[in-house]
Amino acid sequence: MDLVSEALGQALAATESLDGGEVADYIPELAEADRHRQALALVSVAGHDYAVGDADHEFTLQSVSKPFVYALAVDELGIDVVERSVGSEPSGEAFNAISLDPATGRPVNAMINAGAIMTTSLIEGSDTGERLERLLATLSAFAGRDLHIDEQVYASELETGDRNRALAYLMRSTNALRDNVDDVVNTYFRQCAVLVNAHDLAVMAATLANRGINPVTGTTVVGEAAARCTLAQMASAGMYDQAGAWLLKVGMPAKSGVSGGIAAVDPGQFGVGVFSPALDEHGTSVRGGAILRTLSEEYGLHLLAHAPSTGRRDLEVTVRRDSTVLLLPPEIDFAVAEQLSHLAGRLIEQDLTAPTSVIIDLAQVSTVRRSGARLLRATVDQLQLAMGSSLQIHDPTAVLH
Amino acid sequence: MDLVSEALGQALAATESLDGGEVADYIPELAEADRHRQALALVSVAGHDYAVGDADHEFTLQSVSKPFVYALAVDELGIDVVERSVGSEPSGEAFNAISLDPATGRPVNAMINAGAIMTTSLIEGSDTGERLERLLATLSAFAGRDLHIDEQVYASELETGDRNRALAYLMRSTNALRDNVDDVVNTYFRQCAVLVNAHDLAVMAATLANRGINPVTGTTVVGEAAARCTLAQMASAGMYDQAGAWLLKVGMPAKSGVSGGIAAVDPGQFGVGVFSPALDEHGTSVRGGAILRTLSEEYGLHLLAHAPSTGRRDLEVTVRRDSTVLLLPPEIDFAVAEQLSHLAGRLIEQDLTAPTSVIIDLAQVSTVRRSGARLLRATVDQLQLAMGSSLQIHDPTAVLH
Amino acid sequence: MDLVSEALGQALAATESLDGGEVADYIPELAEADRHRQALALVSVAGHDYAVGDADHEFTLQSVSKPFVYALAVDELGIDVVERSVGSEPSGEAFNAISLDPATGRPVNAMINAGAIMTTSLIEGSDTGERLERLLATLSAFAGRDLHIDEQVYASELETGDRNRALAYLMRSTNALRDNVDDVVNTYFRQCAVLVNAHDLAVMAATLANRGINPVTGTTVVGEAAARCTLAQMASAGMYDQAGAWLLKVGMPAKSGVSGGIAAVDPGQFGVGVFSPALDEHGTSVRGGAILRTLSEEYGLHLLAHAPSTGRRDLEVTVRRDSTVLLLPPEIDFAVAEQLSHLAGRLIEQDLTAPTSVIIDLAQVSTVRRSGARLLRATVDQLQLAMGSSLQIHDPTAVLH
Amino acid sequence: MDLVSEALGQALAATESLDGGEVADYIPELAEADRHRQALALVSVAGHDYAVGDADHEFTLQSVSKPFVYALAVDELGIDVVERSVGSEPSGEAFNAISLDPATGRPVNAMINAGAIMTTSLIEGSDTGERLERLLATLSAFAGRDLHIDEQVYASELETGDRNRALAYLMRSTNALRDNVDDVVNTYFRQCAVLVNAHDLAVMAATLANRGINPVTGTTVVGEAAARCTLAQMASAGMYDQAGAWLLKVGMPAKSGVSGGIAAVDPGQFGVGVFSPALDEHGTSVRGGAILRTLSEEYGLHLLAHAPSTGRRDLEVTVRRDSTVLLLPPEIDFAVAEQLSHLAGRLIEQDLTAPTSVIIDLAQVSTVRRSGARLLRATVDQLQLAMGSSLQIHDPTAVLH
Repeated sequence: MDLVSEALGQALAATESLDGGEVADYIPELAEADRHRQALALVSVAGHDYAVGDADHEFTLQSVSKPFVYALAVDELGIDVVERSVGSEPSGEAFNAISLDPATGRPVNAMINAGAIMTTSLIEGSDTGERLERLLATLSAFAGRDLHIDEQVYASELETGDRNRALAYLMRSTNALRDNVDDVVNTYFRQCAVLVNAHDLAVMAATLANRGINPVTGTTVVGEAAARCTLAQMASAGMYDQAGAWLLKVGMPAKSGVSGGIAAVDPGQFGVGVFSPALDEHGTSVRGGAILRTLSEEYGLHLLAHAPSTGRRDLEVTVRRDSTVLLLPPEIDFAVAEQLSHLAGRLIEQDLTAPTSVIIDLAQVSTVRRSGARLLRATVDQLQLAMGSSLQIHDPTAVLH
Repeated sequence: MDLVSEALGQALAATESLDGGEVADYIPELAEADRHRQALALVSVAGHDYAVGDADHEFTLQSVSKPFVYALAVDELGIDVVERSVGSEPSGEAFNAISLDPATGRPVNAMINAGAIMTTSLIEGSDTGERLERLLATLSAFAGRDLHIDEQVYASELETGDRNRALAYLMRSTNALRDNVDDVVNTYFRQCAVLVNAHDLAVMAATLANRGINPVTGTTVVGEAAARCTLAQMASAGMYDQAGAWLLKVGMPAKSGVSGGIAAVDPGQFGVGVFSPALDEHGTSVRGGAILRTLSEEYGLHLLAHAPSTGRRDLEVTVRRDSTVLLLPPEIDFAVAEQLSHLAGRLIEQDLTAPTSVIIDLAQVSTVRRSGARLLRATVDQLQLAMGSSLQIHDPTAVLH
Repeated sequence: MDLVSEALGQALAATESLDGGEVADYIPELAEADRHRQALALVSVAGHDYAVGDADHEFTLQSVSKPFVYALAVDELGIDVVERSVGSEPSGEAFNAISLDPATGRPVNAMINAGAIMTTSLIEGSDTGERLERLLATLSAFAGRDLHIDEQVYASELETGDRNRALAYLMRSTNALRDNVDDVVNTYFRQCAVLVNAHDLAVMAATLANRGINPVTGTTVVGEAAARCTLAQMASAGMYDQAGAWLLKVGMPAKSGVSGGIAAVDPGQFGVGVFSPALDEHGTSVRGGAILRTLSEEYGLHLLAHAPSTGRRDLEVTVRRDSTVLLLPPEIDFAVAEQLSHLAGRLIEQDLTAPTSVIIDLAQVSTVRRSGARLLRATVDQLQLAMGSSLQIHDPTAVLH
Repeated sequence: MDLVSEALGQALAATESLDGGEVADYIPELAEADRHRQALALVSVAGHDYAVGDADHEFTLQSVSKPFVYALAVDELGIDVVERSVGSEPSGEAFNAISLDPATGRPVNAMINAGAIMTTSLIEGSDTGERLERLLATLSAFAGRDLHIDEQVYASELETGDRNRALAYLMRSTNALRDNVDDVVNTYFRQCAVLVNAHDLAVMAATLANRGINPVTGTTVVGEAAARCTLAQMASAGMYDQAGAWLLKVGMPAKSGVSGGIAAVDPGQFGVGVFSPALDEHGTSVRGGAILRTLSEEYGLHLLAHAPSTGRRDLEVTVRRDSTVLLLPPEIDFAVAEQLSHLAGRLIEQDLTAPTSVIIDLAQVSTVRRSGARLLRATVDQLQLAMGSSLQIHDPTAVLH
């Protein structure tokens, strides 16, 4: 077995003693879930996939559908338009909390049910059928395969969905929601009843990790801005009333669902899908949460702990008799670009142009982070302006183009 | 002028037309602030500092003190002990919200006043004087210079601090808070009345960006875990009832105060301090917030958008007649380590040990991210076990040690 | 003009300068109401009726229907059964507040919309048609004439009734409400759309004042217990979030509706109906409220100020040579019965039986309040037992039977 | 034993099987209370007193002090001034709820702790000592004997009173409360620590029943308006979050305290004091509440059920050849006055003046209720004006003067 799978297997094994939690039982289909079944899958931004446990076992998306439909809405309409209808604030409340702005009826965020129903209503479509088709097509593109609705689960959701209908009517009563309630709630129930497995969740999460591009199929599902906004919503509100503790302890944007699935993202690295149906009092998979916390702690995946563990290489300056060589390190982030800019300022002040030359050596650069790109280019431009032909740039891999 | 200062100057200029907001007026000292005065400072994790505007102008820390005192508490007691007294959830409510758990009296997070007062009460000290001394010493270590209390502001806070006293008495009434109310509230008022300038805020924020080590003085102020937990609290609750929108739009952990200061962090890169005293209805500096948003958008500083802007270099595999060379790229993160592991699995399966050799070339590696370190080492170990002397490792910079 | 009508006319005139408030505009039929039209009617428990203004002008009952339907439910099921489904606590909140018990979904009282919808669902009927028929029959019996539904108003309510549907779905989602939501909400909208005039309101209120018996038609509409419970609900919650101030200042159980009607009760005396369509921010008729306050203050109608304004007559004791005469006053309440009991105790102690006789003279008694009846009878029994034939009872109007 | 005492004894005995509830234990003095001790006392508006159980056993007033201090504040300042500082709305919340208006800090009513502390702060006094002296003097006047403070209970309340201090600081933070917090809270704790027995509670309640005049001592403690407002507050909010159910089921304005006392009022009839220290979850004496409910049901004491149980006597009209005699019944309330007015209108219309005379016979009148007084006089005036000397008035007891 490969090492990543081994690591996943260890994480799964480490939580097997967790017997707590209850399988959701508000509809028979969920109540029948086998609480001992579990799965964990990881898909990297290179498109490699790993899985342990019953990774082919299908379950319904439920609330895990919310961030992906939100990504579609933001992609179609832009975040500013979406924000007019759905807020971005964590509520500190449960998934089915009312949490509507008392004056406008706007739900506080897109991860609670009210906000998710509103988000579904924002998806364009000339009629309910077309909207559903586009929703399903997008969820399928996220997963990289055609997904289908579990019609029996949908039928059961319809029967027990009074609270969601209530939320929709509350939003309609202030004109926050403009659609027919039955239409939008039924579409929402259908998106919740889409069947996936843990591997699918990992691909879907990896697509968000990979700036909206499915790393397995290469398809651009949503744009980078929509992916980033979605990760922000997952980070601040994805875990409902434990969102703050999750960001503190696990530090991965994530979304859970009552069928026992969780999708989690390490931005720029990979997506994870986990499945285990016994839920805690917040409606989150007990083992699923524990597995992700274990992975985060063991592998240092915390969003706010991505500092290098080994010494970064700084800019190296070699002053020779007739030239000063500025050797740039492999990764250019804001900190490195800032060092170069800092040095350039001093070189210009010292008027080192005349007898000597300055060589900027970019040969080792492999990565230019967005946070460093603009400052790097501006610094090079500034030096060129000041030094003219005395500046030489060694850029064999065309980093500056 | 250097380019970073120029960039800061442009961000400052871009928001000069924002005339909205009101200067805080609940005490005379704040009410007298000049609404046209402003400053912006940046300090990188290399310790370089930049500033534009009145960066020497002093103002009181107010709520910006909260994350730094929280960092001290977590450093001293550990997050698990701190969490027994202060929650980690965003409240979706204003800075002075009551937001206590009705049963236990525990405040929901450390960024609202109630939680900050509780946090102050957790700082060890044999008496009030010693606690205050340790608080001041820590804030000074964050700033890299001796900070002092504005006694006049403290006196005014004392006079108008009834709501904070009320919050403390509410927490005491459930035994959540065990200290004498006057003692702890007075200490809290003193920490709020500590004088800083925008440059100080930037150094303090940079210390959090630099995993607890002040990048200017080199002093370890708090440990890495405390710095990470603090950034998580700032990300989820630092901006009170606009925390979610801030994470969505700006994406930098930050904390604002009613005197008009904001400290913001780009983890692993730099800290920013900004000052402009006119506040919006949430108690956040109008221009300060706009400046940070501008910087984030212009320079791609969003926490959830740190994917590389230029192509990363992947693992390069060169298969020769008698050897296979695996050239590792300069940055090893989880994705690269996973590629290596993926490949190693296949090499072992193919039983390539006998006639040929495998060479792992680490010569170009400059950075091993925490998320890649463990998997890299495990993969190398696995290959060594499987291949014995057929494996050669070229590691001139001792990446593996 | 008779004096009562004159008094009503003066109350109407006294509030004519009140120009504040807005006509309800959520449906066109209400928005078109003439804000200058007004009416005031009073019907005594003797069945006499008085009216000033446009007392024949019809408007829809709206929320004024709530107490009368509640009276029917309590009459049919008993208060204990009703209380399982609808609470009895004032909410301190607006008419359309959610105010459901979070655990059970039970609405806090029957005067807010949620509680009224629940109450309507409690009315028996083999189907929706039968339930509506019984509702209409009861409202008609309260008014003493056949009432009809304004179908246009009903149609408009249907269109704008999303908040009420939401409340019903919320109650259904906890199984608090078991009916089909559309059926019960439509029936509720129909009961709100019943047309009445100010005179009808006065008759309906007078029926509650008269212990459930319509004083005009003589029909027993509901039992005494149901009438009493209804008055209690009107007293504590009839005026929503101004119920406490209303009890303090006006002191009459009352219920207002958004069409501008108010029904108010002076228990045992009369009912009042008032109409003026401009509403305050609580949804209560501005002039209607002022008229009732004026009437209450001018005529001493406050529920908690019903003490006699002239000296009550106490029990008179005349001790003659051979007999002691106890002359009972016209009204026997608890206080008088207690006086008699007090005296009887002393007479028995003194063993006054032998040579003398005791005469209880009931000739002047015209009223025995319920609070005095039981004690009066027990005292007479006690004296008879102790004194035997020495006790004479003069009871020409058979008060004791 | 007299019959009233017997009735009280039966009510006490009927609830002896109620073993539920817990004695308050937040201070040692309350925790030590003997849960089997109980007492019930009644004092009529004639000043007669009855008691069963340990009616001499002293306990502290606690929250039962609230309505009496409120009565004093309303008497001194008028209800309109008091309402600027303390609302009149039931909160539907517990005794220690925060329940302050978020904008102004005004407590919702005077029966919750926050409102009671505010009420205490309204009592005039040049200093804390004088205020306390006036408070004690008023409570003593209500009870008809000198009351004293239990200094040990006061000391314990001081130690555990953090929540009340918090409420006071919250009110001060919005300038709703202007006094020094310690001063007003300490005064409040002292008023709560005043020692009374069940008999005292009955006298205090009887004073409110008797329009502010202590029926035992004859002293006017507060004016009629203050007594009426106090009864209204007790009716709507005296029993906290069970106020609505209490009005529905018991129907007597009442106030409970955590020491196990309840004072209840039958306006115009009597006051009751009850003591039994085991409390329900609302902080109300379990047996005390049950005893009052039993009394109310057995003796028909419900505020909204005071209709006559035997036929009232109506106005009798005797038409003779040359005169029409209108014989008024013993009790003149609005209904009777309205009958007279009704008849007078018809007599005047018929122009019966000339040959005949009209005789109004007031000989049997014993009671003129406030609600009938004004209309009676106006009707007589109207007849006099219309009929001149043809009208004769027979008024041997000077009812009309």
